[in-house]
Amino acid sequence: MTPFEFRQLIRSQTHTGPTAGFCPGYAQANLVVLPRDLAYDFLLFAQRNPKSCPLLEVTDTGSRFLKDIAKGADIATDLPKYRVYEHGVMTGEYTDVSHLWRDDLVSFLIGCSFSFEGELLETGVPVRHIEQNCNVPMYLTNIPCAPAGVFKGNMVVSMRPMPYDQIVKSVLVTGAMPKVHGAPVHIGNPSVIGIKDVNKPDFGDAVTIKDGEVPVFWPCGVTPQAALMASKPAFAITHAPGHMLVTDVKNIDLKY
Amino acid sequence: MTPFEFRQLIRSQTHTGPTAGFCPGYAQANLVVLPRDLAYDFLLFAQRNPKSCPLLEVTDTGSRFLKDIAKGADIATDLPKYRVYEHGVMTGEYTDVSHLWRDDLVSFLIGCSFSFEGELLETGVPVRHIEQNCNVPMYLTNIPCAPAGVFKGNMVVSMRPMPYDQIVKSVLVTGAMPKVHGAPVHIGNPSVIGIKDVNKPDFGDAVTIKDGEVPVFWPCGVTPQAALMASKPAFAITHAPGHMLVTDVKNIDLKY
Repeated sequence: MTPFEFRQLIRSQTHTGPTAGFCPGYAQANLVVLPRDLAYDFLLFAQRNPKSCPLLEVTDTGSRFLKDIAKGADIATDLPKYRVYEHGVMTGEYTDVSHLWRDDLVSFLIGCSFSFEGELLETGVPVRHIEQNCNVPMYLTNIPCAPAGVFKGNMVVSMRPMPYDQIVKSVLVTGAMPKVHGAPVHIGNPSVIGIKDVNKPDFGDAVTIKDGEVPVFWPCGVTPQAALMASKPAFAITHAPGHMLVTDVKNIDLKY
Repeated sequence: MTPFEFRQLIRSQTHTGPTAGFCPGYAQANLVVLPRDLAYDFLLFAQRNPKSCPLLEVTDTGSRFLKDIAKGADIATDLPKYRVYEHGVMTGEYTDVSHLWRDDLVSFLIGCSFSFEGELLETGVPVRHIEQNCNVPMYLTNIPCAPAGVFKGNMVVSMRPMPYDQIVKSVLVTGAMPKVHGAPVHIGNPSVIGIKDVNKPDFGDAVTIKDGEVPVFWPCGVTPQAALMASKPAFAITHAPGHMLVTDVKNIDLKY
């Protein structure tokens, strides 16, 4: 099934579940939709924090349609599930947000670690939370983001444990993909970046760190979401966790 | 002389000339200053056209001071020469623009090919316009930029001729520096990208292409300047050609 075909199943609400595992090899993207009066600050936040907020595409104001990463995709119907927030509080989950669309909305499509995990697996680096069939562990750090207008906060990171002899390879593989978070932000000692207990993630699930394994931390797309929600925006739409946009861009093309 | 020391000489108007050749190894940046009402479109244009418009820093609205690439640098005094435009027409050249500063101005610092030329020379790739002590040849192409709001236009490219056996190295060296335009956009046949006569550049100076040499084309920072001027903005400040901001960032650090 091509990403286009899969998006048609989503548009017709034939598929309303998570997107993980569908259209392997193609990038999936996080979604943030904001009114134009917040869009400048958010765009600036992304420019200043590209590792945690790598933008794959930003729509024209009011347009529901993508032109680049998924030509013709309709933002309001082509993701399987959305969350709507008012003043920072979730007010609903929907499989279609056409009825909520407004002429002042701007959509931000943000690169996702699914893409580099595919490359890590290809080269033989283990991805523990995939092995354990759970969500990736994520942590709030003491690394400040560069603030922009109303948006500020510390970086959220995701963690993948691995044996020492896989670290260099994982840095090189992910470092070549800056559009999907790029290289790790820390390797080895969680306390250095303000993480008290690596077995108690702030978001997602804990995973096993085997004897002789090292925790490796990457900037995480939850960072901009956390900064956004902390600002209690009057109106915002995001994808529901795990229910992403499946794009027409191959992961391997995110290197160029 | 450190970049900080050099900027003090510029601030005191002891140095008012071009910046090429000063503080070798440190990145220099192009400057575009726009009112806030145009800044969103320009930021979006840069997001959509990162190869020709790689942003190194964007200031807070109204602030004259940089926080990242040249901590404490004053945008209004620390470049040796500025040009002021009103409705797309140049209305003045100044060595200080403090008296023109407004609370609604946003400054964009844009990466510059000086940085990758330093790396090319380091690895033994010839840079002809430096050898010939003239400006780099630049051409308007048939490659459309992704438009954003009021900004649109085709890509402008710069050209460096080289022997066949230097092409691969030059792609790898510059491809590793996406913050300063990155890899070439075309190698070999100028007509493919809409250039009629490689000996008649649209901007800058013609350079010698020796027998057996191939013209190699890179996205150029004149692209956003051309798109900006075509929109005839009510007010804009730019650096005067060759009179750039000298940053505290080493060229080699632009790889990471």
